Amino acid sequence: MRKVEAFMKEKGLSLGDRVSVVKREGDRRIRYEGIVMPPYELSPGETLTIKLDNGYNVGVRIELIESVEVIEKARPGEEVAFKEVLPRKEGLPGVTILGTGGTIASKIDYKTGAVHAAFTAEELARAVPEIFEIANITPKLLMNIMSEDMKPDYWKRMAHEAAKALNAGEDGVVIAHGTDTLAYSAAALSFMLRDLEKPVIFVGSQRSSDRPSSDSAMNLICSVRMATADFGEVAIVMHGETSDTYCLAHRGTKARKMHTSRRDAFRSINDVPIARVWPKGEIEFLRKDYRKRGEREVWVDDRMEPRVGLLKVVPGISSELIDFFVDRGYRGLVIEGTGLGHTPNDIIPAIERATEEGMAVCMTSQCLYGRVNLNVYSTGRRLLKAGVIPCEDMLPETAYVKLMWVLGHTDDPKEVREMMLTNYAGEITPYTRFDTYLR
Amino acid sequence: MRKVEAFMKEKGLSLGDRVSVVKREGDRRIRYEGIVMPPYELSPGETLTIKLDNGYNVGVRIELIESVEVIEKARPGEEVAFKEVLPRKEGLPGVTILGTGGTIASKIDYKTGAVHAAFTAEELARAVPEIFEIANITPKLLMNIMSEDMKPDYWKRMAHEAAKALNAGEDGVVIAHGTDTLAYSAAALSFMLRDLEKPVIFVGSQRSSDRPSSDSAMNLICSVRMATADFGEVAIVMHGETSDTYCLAHRGTKARKMHTSRRDAFRSINDVPIARVWPKGEIEFLRKDYRKRGEREVWVDDRMEPRVGLLKVVPGISSELIDFFVDRGYRGLVIEGTGLGHTPNDIIPAIERATEEGMAVCMTSQCLYGRVNLNVYSTGRRLLKAGVIPCEDMLPETAYVKLMWVLGHTDDPKEVREMMLTNYAGEITPYTRFDTYLR
Repeated sequence: MRKVEAFMKEKGLSLGDRVSVVKREGDRRIRYEGIVMPPYELSPGETLTIKLDNGYNVGVRIELIESVEVIEKARPGEEVAFKEVLPRKEGLPGVTILGTGGTIASKIDYKTGAVHAAFTAEELARAVPEIFEIANITPKLLMNIMSEDMKPDYWKRMAHEAAKALNAGEDGVVIAHGTDTLAYSAAALSFMLRDLEKPVIFVGSQRSSDRPSSDSAMNLICSVRMATADFGEVAIVMHGETSDTYCLAHRGTKARKMHTSRRDAFRSINDVPIARVWPKGEIEFLRKDYRKRGEREVWVDDRMEPRVGLLKVVPGISSELIDFFVDRGYRGLVIEGTGLGHTPNDIIPAIERATEEGMAVCMTSQCLYGRVNLNVYSTGRRLLKAGVIPCEDMLPETAYVKLMWVLGHTDDPKEVREMMLTNYAGEITPYTRFDTYLR
Repeated sequence: MRKVEAFMKEKGLSLGDRVSVVKREGDRRIRYEGIVMPPYELSPGETLTIKLDNGYNVGVRIELIESVEVIEKARPGEEVAFKEVLPRKEGLPGVTILGTGGTIASKIDYKTGAVHAAFTAEELARAVPEIFEIANITPKLLMNIMSEDMKPDYWKRMAHEAAKALNAGEDGVVIAHGTDTLAYSAAALSFMLRDLEKPVIFVGSQRSSDRPSSDSAMNLICSVRMATADFGEVAIVMHGETSDTYCLAHRGTKARKMHTSRRDAFRSINDVPIARVWPKGEIEFLRKDYRKRGEREVWVDDRMEPRVGLLKVVPGISSELIDFFVDRGYRGLVIEGTGLGHTPNDIIPAIERATEEGMAVCMTSQCLYGRVNLNVYSTGRRLLKAGVIPCEDMLPETAYVKLMWVLGHTDDPKEVREMMLTNYAGEITPYTRFDTYLR
């Protein structure tokens, strides 16, 4: 049990209780009044989180709490902090917004000047009132982590929560996510959510929501619009240009964060975006081959093998790196090769050993744009002979996530190859369109 | 001694001898007449290479040679195969073309359909007669490897050969290089060639030179033009568009192969190209801050620490990968972090241990475009505290090469940091221009 849970037990506190807490700060005493929030599952659990009446959360370190007094007990069974059901408007579609943390849900710490993940999904929703005109919004704080800390296990939780909401009748789900690893998560849910026929829209923000230049409001508005559209896939909705004109909806397996800070950082790679989404409401589909909304129940296929690595090849790379993955019992490795999908010839024997020992080795290209082809040069042919699976025009990041998912299903080399080369969620395009380069 | 050298000794053959060789092929006997070429240094040395009169090289396996007869001995001291001095035209500048292998110097094996590195620099030069109108060309075959096999030691050889040619009076050097790792080599020579005041131009080809769609002729012509320009840096000259309009000259530290197969695969990242080079002769400089031609002698600073790694961070990455680099005695590691330069928080302790044990850890971004900034989020601040060096807007590939070079000079953490953040060859721009994204 974490400190915070022990403290709550000792003091008889429940989630949703209205409390008054007095905190020591040197000689001073500070009083906070608000609702007891669930401790973030990923925090060390050394603080009690209280939602103040101004909407902000404050975390008080347990050892600094001088006294705590319950003003009003939460009604039993009420998950106050997790879910706020607002009065539903007749005729509007229903959209659940899952909060996971990240910049779209962050604020500046005015003491240090650094940005912390801090807003709850509820606060976020309240900060952008426009979305309540588009849909009946059910916000839910799933976790509150910076996206660089995202892990396969969290992908599973997101997938299950999204499926639960959709199968309970929601028309779409929006997942607010930090941008660092947003594309990896979108790829993961693209594979995990089977028979998906409703929109699951990932959205993030490149500037925190309390800055004047923030993109979070428009991104959130467009993501809710896309979540109510005639569309049934996982997509990423982010700024299409640097100005507040429109957002682009990218297929969850074909997009990438291509810039550290620009608002239009997310780009479709080797593929045309699915749609242009205008904040006022128009959704301009840019292609015809997308799945439309349907009535099937979605189910979650979340079997994942976590022992998968990604290795970018560089001149002078040592084969001991390949050996490392084999010796540590990794089940799969995605290589970011050079050009059409090459490695130095002197590491091919180590790759051969890896496949002989049953490790699945997949080839992608560090060029990012274009398609792997191991039939053109002799090095490629040697790699094919060594058992390497050429991943067509799949992004390295998508291939990495997919290989985890595939290896969660089978260990058989033939089946792994077959599944890696099967197009499950638009991750492989049959040919590369000329007009998708550097867009 | 390799088989070929033993054979040549036994038969009294010298490089440059004109010979007649009879080869067994089953029941048949095939006779080749031509000049004995130097065996490629990197080949297993089991074939005798003969340059036929049609310009092609043929490799004959030693054990299949039935007889060999010397028709004409090479004159002593004449490096026939390495260097063909053509009659020099008065008034033309001098350009040495160094051949290293790769597609610009490759041909299809009509038996297997695969492409092999095969043309010599001489053949290459002869295949594009236009360049002899631009300059007095001295071709020199330095090595013949596919660029995926490039290593730091070969960068040194290229640097020394380029410096030798320039200090001997050449006006420029062109290095024909396979495209897979061309950008890494260009970055390496950018750091190694100190006080460079003449052009050193890397050129490659995305389609082999015997295909109708080949880009090698125009690229070679433009590279020779750039090698004679009023310019004194390392640059990459490749197609600017897919059609044969113009080439772009990119700064050697700021470019990247962004597509597996397109002719316009090379792009400047976070920077404006140096010039547009038209095959007919015009060179349109696109910026003012480049080094012009000068008279100083170039010298080679080739101290490199080869024990440097590059690691791309992915969700679910294990800190055992960081430990691996430390435990194997690597001196430096470049991380391709997410977003502004982040890693999962749970691998930061391993990074801290790495820097404590004296390993230099540098941060770049897998976004490729944009600039690392570790001051915005708490994760970044933790990384800074752990001793990570934020590499501004340097490309991960350039940072990798640079870190090898920096660690070849000093082990002192303060000096490493200072050198990594010093702009030696345009690898760091003071601010990121808005118009350099996805161009």
